[in-house]
Amino acid sequence: MSHPWLAARTAQFDSSGIRKVFDLAAKMKNPINLSIGQPDFPVPDAIKNAACEAIHADRNGYSQTQGIPDLRERLQADLQKEYGHDDRRVLVTSGTSGALVLAMMALVDPGDEVIVFDPYFVMYPALVAMVGGKAVMIDTYPDFKIDLDKVEAAITPRTKLILFNSPSNPTGVVASEEEVRGLAALAAKHNLALLSDEIYRLFCYDAPLPSPAHHNPDVIVVDGFSKAYGVTGWRLGWVHGPAAIIDKMTMLQQYTFVCAPHPLQWAAVAALDVDMSPQAAEYAQRRNRVVGGLRDAGYEVADTGGAFYVFPKVPAGRGTGQEFVARAIENELLIIPGGIFSGGDTNFRISYAASEATLERGLEVLRKIR
Amino acid sequence: MSHPWLAARTAQFDSSGIRKVFDLAAKMKNPINLSIGQPDFPVPDAIKNAACEAIHADRNGYSQTQGIPDLRERLQADLQKEYGHDDRRVLVTSGTSGALVLAMMALVDPGDEVIVFDPYFVMYPALVAMVGGKAVMIDTYPDFKIDLDKVEAAITPRTKLILFNSPSNPTGVVASEEEVRGLAALAAKHNLALLSDEIYRLFCYDAPLPSPAHHNPDVIVVDGFSKAYGVTGWRLGWVHGPAAIIDKMTMLQQYTFVCAPHPLQWAAVAALDVDMSPQAAEYAQRRNRVVGGLRDAGYEVADTGGAFYVFPKVPAGRGTGQEFVARAIENELLIIPGGIFSGGDTNFRISYAASEATLERGLEVLRKIR
Repeated sequence: MSHPWLAARTAQFDSSGIRKVFDLAAKMKNPINLSIGQPDFPVPDAIKNAACEAIHADRNGYSQTQGIPDLRERLQADLQKEYGHDDRRVLVTSGTSGALVLAMMALVDPGDEVIVFDPYFVMYPALVAMVGGKAVMIDTYPDFKIDLDKVEAAITPRTKLILFNSPSNPTGVVASEEEVRGLAALAAKHNLALLSDEIYRLFCYDAPLPSPAHHNPDVIVVDGFSKAYGVTGWRLGWVHGPAAIIDKMTMLQQYTFVCAPHPLQWAAVAALDVDMSPQAAEYAQRRNRVVGGLRDAGYEVADTGGAFYVFPKVPAGRGTGQEFVARAIENELLIIPGGIFSGGDTNFRISYAASEATLERGLEVLRKIR
Repeated sequence: MSHPWLAARTAQFDSSGIRKVFDLAAKMKNPINLSIGQPDFPVPDAIKNAACEAIHADRNGYSQTQGIPDLRERLQADLQKEYGHDDRRVLVTSGTSGALVLAMMALVDPGDEVIVFDPYFVMYPALVAMVGGKAVMIDTYPDFKIDLDKVEAAITPRTKLILFNSPSNPTGVVASEEEVRGLAALAAKHNLALLSDEIYRLFCYDAPLPSPAHHNPDVIVVDGFSKAYGVTGWRLGWVHGPAAIIDKMTMLQQYTFVCAPHPLQWAAVAALDVDMSPQAAEYAQRRNRVVGGLRDAGYEVADTGGAFYVFPKVPAGRGTGQEFVARAIENELLIIPGGIFSGGDTNFRISYAASEATLERGLEVLRKIR
């Protein structure tokens, strides 16, 4: 695909690797699908009903750019309780990806450097490229912990932003209190923006999520409804941070996303009163089963505390992530090669957002092809 | 508002002028509101019901990037019937603004020139600036017709794209068959991308909308559900054009908007079978009433054939658009100064997406302050 009209920046955007794996999967008859990046539980009825009530109550026109007051005020009150920062403001966005796009546009000038931890969420390098920035990768293999010395060594006069994600997609690793405190301090010391992508906050199994925003009032936090309530297709998230940054992101939203889907924002208000801890507890059990099953089978898996992913190493002698995944697919198991999320291709991603039976079938294949 | 972290591009994004007028309006007790850019009819029940059915049927996860097959195939079939182009492909987007953002990212390199007709939709200059492009304005006062010689004279080696909108926001003017044929030929002659923003297609009162895509198979057309079905808050649109361009926009969507809101896409399928011609006929009558009323009162109004706006000239001796609007607001009438949509500030925009009674009260004020 090429066309003389296409802008130079588009050369950096190819079909996401995950899509390519999905295309492969389309040819599978009865795949054991452990590739999915969204929860497998249904949206709670209270949330569905609130969406339909809003639609029938004619809440279908534009909302305020920054989100409906009911949702914004509720989120803001929760933030004040958790952080107590004087200058922290909230903006309702079209998913966390909407928040990430606006943050990139607001913060990153062409040539600016953005620190990204490898492995990374698949969108990060693309988002940095989209605004002309340069992603500077920090290797976190094999345990996916953050080495603060490496981060400090990577900082240059062009460094503008640190993109941080915990619990992590694709590794499932949750950064420790010590790591986030150190990162928050580094950002403050070097006057860098630090964006904490906390979309998997609900899925944090062993302790409440340590956030760098607890240690630095200028941290920008991205969050969303997608994963916690199973509404990835609703395009609903929020971002909070220093008022001057959030206000500029709000202005940029006027000219891009306009507003998050209006009736669904009313459902989000209802969602905030729905207890999702039973779902989270169920996912914690699956984490135990998958990590345990993999280790019993001899796979090398880092300690994971959240999200719904694990990122095991391809066994010695079994080739690259891509080669290993090809073999899994021959056995009807759909997983994602690590190279999609990384400069290297030594691991593979398993999602445990799947039924117990599916997980068991997947583990069986993995025991077989080890 | 300023912050050391903000990127240079953000200096070009201030709160949209329309928002400022809305802030003024917030202080009005019982405003005669002729400023609204969305229809005042409710969403037809068949569309609301289809949205709720999709939500209850668990269609709440991600959709395919390019839109659900049912919607895409239906739109594609309609396009084949209307245009019969071999290479025309469709992408479902998050509103027309989503389509416009993706088109800018796909087509405009920093320094590229984009031809924009003045007066323009308020987003256009901002969107061009967002990707580092340069908007080259073509003056269309006083009748808001397109002078093809002026367009050709504005073309330089850096010209990449012509942004065209008919029926026009803010003028309500519909370009003639001759104008669109000429524009389509100019784009072909100079190998330029031509984007036709047809969001007000339903609201075209005197004849079916002449589209440049009828005369040039490479024209990119942006369309949406927002205005035709009263769902501006649903963020649902579509774009069609040469496959290579649309495919690249689809890839860019993966990293930005992800997908249009999934359950609402199912409602859009239902919407395509709902006849909105009674609503359009009602708006045609309002157009007649407002244009007639204004002309009877001595206002200079161009011939308008569509959208739901008129863009009269401020009477001689009554100052700028902003000064005139301030006077209107003192009289409880909310309208928008022309400078919001233009390099000049000689006109004002009236929206007739309002009840007959409201329109009558508005005309009364306009007769008084003339």
